[in-house]
Amino acid sequence: MRTVDVIIKKRDGGNLAADEIRHMVNGCVSGEIPDYQLAAWLMAIFNRGMTFAELAALTQAMVLSGEVYDLSAIPLTKVDKHSTGGVGDKVSLVLAPLVAAAGVPVPMVAGRGLGHTGGTIDKLEAIPGFNVRLSTRRFREQVEQIGVAIVGQSESLAPADRKMYALRDVTGTVESIPLIAASIMSKKIAAGIDALVMDVKMGNGAFMSRDEDALQLARTLVAVGREVGMPVVALLTDMNQPLGRAVGNATEVVEAIETLKGRGPDDLREIVLALGAEMLVLGKQADSLAAARTKLTDCLNKGSALDKFAQMIVAQGGDPRFIESPSLFGLDRLSEERIVSDRSGVVAEFDTRRIGIASMVLGAGRETLKDLIDPAVGLYVEKKLGQGVLAGEVLCRILYRDPVHMKRARDLLAGAIKVAERPATPPPLVRGRIDVADLGDSSGG
Amino acid sequence: MRTVDVIIKKRDGGNLAADEIRHMVNGCVSGEIPDYQLAAWLMAIFNRGMTFAELAALTQAMVLSGEVYDLSAIPLTKVDKHSTGGVGDKVSLVLAPLVAAAGVPVPMVAGRGLGHTGGTIDKLEAIPGFNVRLSTRRFREQVEQIGVAIVGQSESLAPADRKMYALRDVTGTVESIPLIAASIMSKKIAAGIDALVMDVKMGNGAFMSRDEDALQLARTLVAVGREVGMPVVALLTDMNQPLGRAVGNATEVVEAIETLKGRGPDDLREIVLALGAEMLVLGKQADSLAAARTKLTDCLNKGSALDKFAQMIVAQGGDPRFIESPSLFGLDRLSEERIVSDRSGVVAEFDTRRIGIASMVLGAGRETLKDLIDPAVGLYVEKKLGQGVLAGEVLCRILYRDPVHMKRARDLLAGAIKVAERPATPPPLVRGRIDVADLGDSSGG
Repeated sequence: MRTVDVIIKKRDGGNLAADEIRHMVNGCVSGEIPDYQLAAWLMAIFNRGMTFAELAALTQAMVLSGEVYDLSAIPLTKVDKHSTGGVGDKVSLVLAPLVAAAGVPVPMVAGRGLGHTGGTIDKLEAIPGFNVRLSTRRFREQVEQIGVAIVGQSESLAPADRKMYALRDVTGTVESIPLIAASIMSKKIAAGIDALVMDVKMGNGAFMSRDEDALQLARTLVAVGREVGMPVVALLTDMNQPLGRAVGNATEVVEAIETLKGRGPDDLREIVLALGAEMLVLGKQADSLAAARTKLTDCLNKGSALDKFAQMIVAQGGDPRFIESPSLFGLDRLSEERIVSDRSGVVAEFDTRRIGIASMVLGAGRETLKDLIDPAVGLYVEKKLGQGVLAGEVLCRILYRDPVHMKRARDLLAGAIKVAERPATPPPLVRGRIDVADLGDSSGG
Repeated sequence: MRTVDVIIKKRDGGNLAADEIRHMVNGCVSGEIPDYQLAAWLMAIFNRGMTFAELAALTQAMVLSGEVYDLSAIPLTKVDKHSTGGVGDKVSLVLAPLVAAAGVPVPMVAGRGLGHTGGTIDKLEAIPGFNVRLSTRRFREQVEQIGVAIVGQSESLAPADRKMYALRDVTGTVESIPLIAASIMSKKIAAGIDALVMDVKMGNGAFMSRDEDALQLARTLVAVGREVGMPVVALLTDMNQPLGRAVGNATEVVEAIETLKGRGPDDLREIVLALGAEMLVLGKQADSLAAARTKLTDCLNKGSALDKFAQMIVAQGGDPRFIESPSLFGLDRLSEERIVSDRSGVVAEFDTRRIGIASMVLGAGRETLKDLIDPAVGLYVEKKLGQGVLAGEVLCRILYRDPVHMKRARDLLAGAIKVAERPATPPPLVRGRIDVADLGDSSGG
């Protein structure tokens, strides 16, 4: 097989055979195919797309490029949740222990923040001692013993994805729905799970800013799941404002703990229940979404979800006193700056991406993967879409350490929350749901 | 300027500014832009095309990547001819001295053969001693003194083209009309000419097998010429059968000499006169195409074209006795194999590309640029499209040295000339003509 012929086939809109796709992925990992040929191939895929069958072959080749976790010793159906990323998205911190408390094992492999979006791993590392790097054996044992573990992406999982992502980043081929889908799915399959719930964000704080792209990504993820035999349900959820009120790392952990205690913000709680219900049904611990919600609500009310969170923190070396007494995070020792409204009215619009960038600028996020973060700094959104506000009322509070950072964040935030005179209807939280029954055909991703 | 942003702009169908194009071309030559980014950019151009204005900027950046011959000391309008390549295309051997004899200086930079097409430089090298590598000064002086020189492509001309072509060859981005046009035009402009006649081949022996692509290439070449201020006229000529009868190197030189003596095949003579008339008008040595043809015919009849050819051979170190006595090429010392028709009828179709491959297989051409060629071997097409043939008559003669090569060539040729019962009308030799007046707008190439 000649590499250039595979490139030309895709360039001209042909459908690649599984062995042609394996040739490219294996050559990528081994280094036998030079980067310039991979780059041309990726651009051809960007342009021509891939059928779901091609995408399944690409995903499987990427899975087999590295280690595949064997969690078959855990007899129950293991379910993970993955989000395309947003601002204030601390869902996993609440959801993983909650779903585990309801009986579904959650072996979660999570990411770090980049750009305007935060990452679950960074947030958990705000808890002193918490270890996100477990060996495969310890990861499996913890899921067996307490039903939940959250770890970072190991270098050994789907190395083809890491190599291809690095190349996509510098060749203008990041925003390709098939390549995004293969990247997500290959890492999830390699992590040894049985089913997946996808939280695909829509709106101005989402990774994909156009609704139709988010919808197409959701359909593609579900379709790849169908092709490779892993059930996937995707919820399309709103990211036109931060989720909850806290944006940062420790700030978000504290809000997650509040939510596990039954006192968190409504939107966060609602999204956790919607995603959790899907996980319970996929994990065969509930017959219906309604029954699943009842079970999850019970776990929150009885405190078993919070207990599970504490167990997980302890199992992974974190200091459990921070869970009992979140004041230990010392957020009150930071300086505070307030953004106030210059008019009375109703919160009509967030520039959510800009709020995420403001959090990054404060030190809570990273511009490049090498940057270090400050786990304590962050911000609180005090008014949400549709809420009334009086002139002089606080829209946003900034917790900062460095005044220079604060000023940059304040400038970003100044115009990021728009107060209008007319009442505004906030968008629904869950904007759509895609499962395998929604896929009409096998056409391109 | 970030390279990835230039890639993304073209990927999304944007029009690149001249400084963005210069950034890419200069980074290509300096090595500052890695090959994988260039490859992604080339694939994006392949996919999205380029406007004529972008193409002019690309061409000019490629020209300035290397040496530009200064022929301004020669006061007359210097005109070259370039062909997209075909089988049996020995036009330049006749045309360059003929046009020079008629008073237009022809500083010709020609290519080598590759794949199914032969190259003018290889053919000239069949003449013992002929030197295709002249210094810039000697090249200029020869054109000043005798009005014509034919040299190979120097490494110093448009090095960006060489680098980009090597990358295109392995990344599936060869067959891009804008990239082909920029490649041709950059080398021609760097060679210091004032005007260009393009011979764009159409048909099953042409580099571009689809007529609409050949037409689009012709329009694009003329448009780039307009944008950079160099007059270009393109003739679309038929390549559904070899041009003339001889295919090879020495075989073609002998046929070219016959044509310079006024005895060559009709189709070769006709194409030479059509292209030459355009060159004389562009070179301001004739007021009309009709007047130009009269002048050219005179030069053939009076022998001044043949004299000019002999002068050029001597000036470049070639042995002039081979011109006077072509039998010195020793073609009669080669073995001969004949392909005969198994039926009576009319020659209805050539697989022209396959005839070119047969010539290559014999040793007259190259599969890769590193292959050595045998200047003597070749073949003769004895019947042309529309000619009657009797069962048992010779369709093709193979001149060979190695019986293994001959057998491979014979197998290729066996089905390459189709004899049918119905009379067939051969296509017209000149199928179209494009000059700047034919360009309606400035849209994409």
